[in-house]
Amino acid sequence: MNNAQDRLNALREAMAKASVDFYFIPREDAFCGEYVPDSEDRLRWMTGFTGSAGLAVVAMGRAATFVDGRYTLQVKDEVDLSCFETLDFTLQQVAQWVVDVDATATIGYDPWLMPASRLQGLEKALENSGFEGDIRSISGNLIDQIWQDRPTPPMGQVRSYEYSSASSFEKRADVNKSYAARGVNGFVITAPDSLVWLLNIRGDDLECTPFLLAFGVLWQDGSVDVFADTKKYATPEVFGENVRLSAPEDFEGFLRACASDGKRLGIDSSAPMAVRQALGTSFVAFSDPCALPKAIKSPEELEGIRKAHFLDGIAVIKFLAWVDQNFKPSELNELQLMDKLEEFRKACPDYKAPSFATIMGSAQHGAIVHYHSTEKTNRSIGANEMLLVDSGGQYPFGTTDITRTVILGQPTDEMKRNFTLVLKGHIALATARFPEGTSGQQLDTLARQYLWQAGLDYDHGTGHGVGQYLSVHEGPQRIAKQGSAVALQPGMILSNEPGYYKSGEYGIRIENLVAVRACPQPGDARTMLGFQNLTTVPISRHLVDLDLMTMEEKRWLNEYHEDIRQQCLNPASPAQGLTSQELDWLDDMTQILS
Amino acid sequence: MNNAQDRLNALREAMAKASVDFYFIPREDAFCGEYVPDSEDRLRWMTGFTGSAGLAVVAMGRAATFVDGRYTLQVKDEVDLSCFETLDFTLQQVAQWVVDVDATATIGYDPWLMPASRLQGLEKALENSGFEGDIRSISGNLIDQIWQDRPTPPMGQVRSYEYSSASSFEKRADVNKSYAARGVNGFVITAPDSLVWLLNIRGDDLECTPFLLAFGVLWQDGSVDVFADTKKYATPEVFGENVRLSAPEDFEGFLRACASDGKRLGIDSSAPMAVRQALGTSFVAFSDPCALPKAIKSPEELEGIRKAHFLDGIAVIKFLAWVDQNFKPSELNELQLMDKLEEFRKACPDYKAPSFATIMGSAQHGAIVHYHSTEKTNRSIGANEMLLVDSGGQYPFGTTDITRTVILGQPTDEMKRNFTLVLKGHIALATARFPEGTSGQQLDTLARQYLWQAGLDYDHGTGHGVGQYLSVHEGPQRIAKQGSAVALQPGMILSNEPGYYKSGEYGIRIENLVAVRACPQPGDARTMLGFQNLTTVPISRHLVDLDLMTMEEKRWLNEYHEDIRQQCLNPASPAQGLTSQELDWLDDMTQILS
Repeated sequence: MNNAQDRLNALREAMAKASVDFYFIPREDAFCGEYVPDSEDRLRWMTGFTGSAGLAVVAMGRAATFVDGRYTLQVKDEVDLSCFETLDFTLQQVAQWVVDVDATATIGYDPWLMPASRLQGLEKALENSGFEGDIRSISGNLIDQIWQDRPTPPMGQVRSYEYSSASSFEKRADVNKSYAARGVNGFVITAPDSLVWLLNIRGDDLECTPFLLAFGVLWQDGSVDVFADTKKYATPEVFGENVRLSAPEDFEGFLRACASDGKRLGIDSSAPMAVRQALGTSFVAFSDPCALPKAIKSPEELEGIRKAHFLDGIAVIKFLAWVDQNFKPSELNELQLMDKLEEFRKACPDYKAPSFATIMGSAQHGAIVHYHSTEKTNRSIGANEMLLVDSGGQYPFGTTDITRTVILGQPTDEMKRNFTLVLKGHIALATARFPEGTSGQQLDTLARQYLWQAGLDYDHGTGHGVGQYLSVHEGPQRIAKQGSAVALQPGMILSNEPGYYKSGEYGIRIENLVAVRACPQPGDARTMLGFQNLTTVPISRHLVDLDLMTMEEKRWLNEYHEDIRQQCLNPASPAQGLTSQELDWLDDMTQILS
Repeated sequence: MNNAQDRLNALREAMAKASVDFYFIPREDAFCGEYVPDSEDRLRWMTGFTGSAGLAVVAMGRAATFVDGRYTLQVKDEVDLSCFETLDFTLQQVAQWVVDVDATATIGYDPWLMPASRLQGLEKALENSGFEGDIRSISGNLIDQIWQDRPTPPMGQVRSYEYSSASSFEKRADVNKSYAARGVNGFVITAPDSLVWLLNIRGDDLECTPFLLAFGVLWQDGSVDVFADTKKYATPEVFGENVRLSAPEDFEGFLRACASDGKRLGIDSSAPMAVRQALGTSFVAFSDPCALPKAIKSPEELEGIRKAHFLDGIAVIKFLAWVDQNFKPSELNELQLMDKLEEFRKACPDYKAPSFATIMGSAQHGAIVHYHSTEKTNRSIGANEMLLVDSGGQYPFGTTDITRTVILGQPTDEMKRNFTLVLKGHIALATARFPEGTSGQQLDTLARQYLWQAGLDYDHGTGHGVGQYLSVHEGPQRIAKQGSAVALQPGMILSNEPGYYKSGEYGIRIENLVAVRACPQPGDARTMLGFQNLTTVPISRHLVDLDLMTMEEKRWLNEYHEDIRQQCLNPASPAQGLTSQELDWLDDMTQILS
């Protein structure tokens, strides 16, 4: 079964046996995350599509892939267009396609791969489109039945995690305080980052994120049930005290037994439908109560996180210095640069892994917001081109994410103007003070205002949360146009990453991570918060048009660079590993601008 | 029955007959608006509370009033505290109080005074509080049964409205385009501004807003059923073609008949529960489809609206000049100033009525955001005090709303600084450019950013929609912290009214109305929108600290003042009515600042 048509035929046979006319193949696994192991990437196996989000719907006579705007070009390259139509991924579009094919047929889905929130949206969209058929949960995934060369699932080892300030016991006591008001005996944890955060452990089931892919239940009494393969741990003790371990295949039966014992459990709206089905009516839907305390880092945790940023910054400084000092037009390509950056990160003994796949976007590739260099897309970097480098690292004490945009040669006036507009937005957000209770949604426009004055904008959020040696994207806080209404609180980490993308020419993004902190000043009538910078890498002065900057903005940039300089020259700092050539570069890049 | 205790006793008797243990007395009438006629102000009759929002809940042994932060002091002055507890108005607080009194009792409410959205919120809050009793719709309002001296309901005359660009026929055809997709035959219009807008009529049932308080149904075929008292119109023709008129008391039976005829009707979530109950299951809930087209004013309508602002501005200019030229410490009080302002407005033959009750807040009264001068609160204005004047007028071609803050004598440095921070926010919003699709929620922070930098803020929204010779507050657009996600569109009107309030000392607010307009510039990569100012009254230069203003901000203020000067000196302008003293004042107030 090496081609799409064979696979489709096999799936259609399985669909006929299961008596369904449509089958849904989402990209997500049961843990609903951005990253899925190869063994769970059913969408890729079926269609060849390698993007990070998408859905295929297979009917008896037709099949379609649905992807968002990031992937509309890529999907046409990757899927067999004689087998799959390609459409925009909105639930309404999916529903319309289904109705066009057959408005009275039966749709099948795997309840482990269907969050309740998505099913509700889909049912509404189907109803709006005039669908009069049936939508049915089918147990036993149909792809799994026909997937012969399926990779083995990851069996990464669980280890205990020591860089969290609070003990697992304290975290459990904090999280389950909310149970009484909700009338539940426990909460079903379906988000892997919540589970490992709660237990002060880390796993090794994904390349860029130290997750244990497992479900759990935190009970009112502070005990936890975890459903993890025994191959994933050497000793049960690694999970800590008061944790009962069971096999993943026992999870569903366990939930059924809880329900018949009269227990009520809380579940998040992103929990798979299979969890709801197993619990019957014995559940209450509310947001994962681990999400907020997980997002709020303690001062000690922030110290570790700052260390991670400093070490990671040294690697990025070495990389940027190396590029500046070794660049010759057309002699270096994107994949070589990716290797070089990874080489500098690996030189740090604490470095564990990239926190996501590096984006190394030269010239027009920089304008593709989620670009990834491959053998096929790789290109040599020419004279006077911009280079956008978005990358991050996993360190045991912190996770980083940084974007720098540099010019290899001479920038045009337009490049400088647009870079400076992005920088002014970055500074406006970095220097914002805001009253307690303010959400990320309220701050988004600060980062866009100068671009807007010039008639420009960018089509992505301005800031996302970041975990501690966990996921590089975490909630519940977020800075975006339609962002999160969750109030920002001291200790939360966010990215500050405005950008500008000129299609076919270049991309600009300036990304630091920042931590929310108390920001009191004399005369304040309110309790004011602000941000503290975590990222310590110079911002390219060659792209700054000083005439567009206010005194205050120039002062911010000079102070930011002075901080980096001080930290790197500190005799106690690990930056003593910088060579004299690298120090020269740093000295040049952090000179006072006026 | 002249005291609260007698009234409570009578109500409790009626409650006993109706077999309910709690009875809800909301401030709203069946039309859910901000303004209610005296004949519908049951809350005021029962409790004495005169604020614009609140709720009383009466139980057999206890009773409570619930009001929001604006009215916590006022309510204690107005209600008999031996009869009523006073609490904060949140549904959770209401539910908690009910449960404290009796968690298993029966709550009664009048379904005409209970929007479905509020009932849902209340039921949820009661459930969260552990309420195990019953909540029941009681037909026939219990207050009405005991209210002996009840004022007669308003019988204002309906007249046709000629300043709308679109005919009622065009509006109906536009609004009911959405019906097919929703699967409805018609929509039940429960918002009075939607009804009069749709029919191109105005009524006279409220003091400040030319509403006809009546329900209607717009059908797919473009015909309309209206339920209005025959005393409210001289001839049915005033309602226009294809309108069927019935008595208000026939409305409920009409809805029941529609439902039994198999018709499905759309209703807004703010429609009274009584409408849902009459329709049974024959309804689909979606937002009032008149709201968005009503908010978007045509270029011709905006011309009339600008005229209204100019005429109203002349009255405010005359008033401010008069105050400046006649002020002597302690010789003028707030009520006198209110009369004076009204006198200047009335001098304009087009002026119909205030668009809301004027706020004339001197010194510490300015810090009370919804302050109203009464005989009891009135005060004389002393030397070096600030005066906040928020007022507006109804003109047949437009509705105005303007706030100016002035100093009567010498300001302190602190007053000037805070006024200037408010002004900088006002200018940032006035000069914003933003891409198509941006909502008011995204712009709110622009107006607050400078106050935030100083540790200050204000506890109200930054901007609300305004009708055309209609309500001074209308949706769906809004600029606020948790504002509306509705995209701003050219032709929408908004207020721009940041402020700062120093409790016990003074209040500052600078409010202009603006219209959204296309705002293209060379080089734009997106379709950009911006605002056009409608209000034409100088901003007090005596309160501006020029050292805190950028060049661009000073330029905006100078250009704004120059525009006013040009308009007032234009030989064709109605401002020729300004006296030479008034022109001198205007000349002084609009001098170039640098």
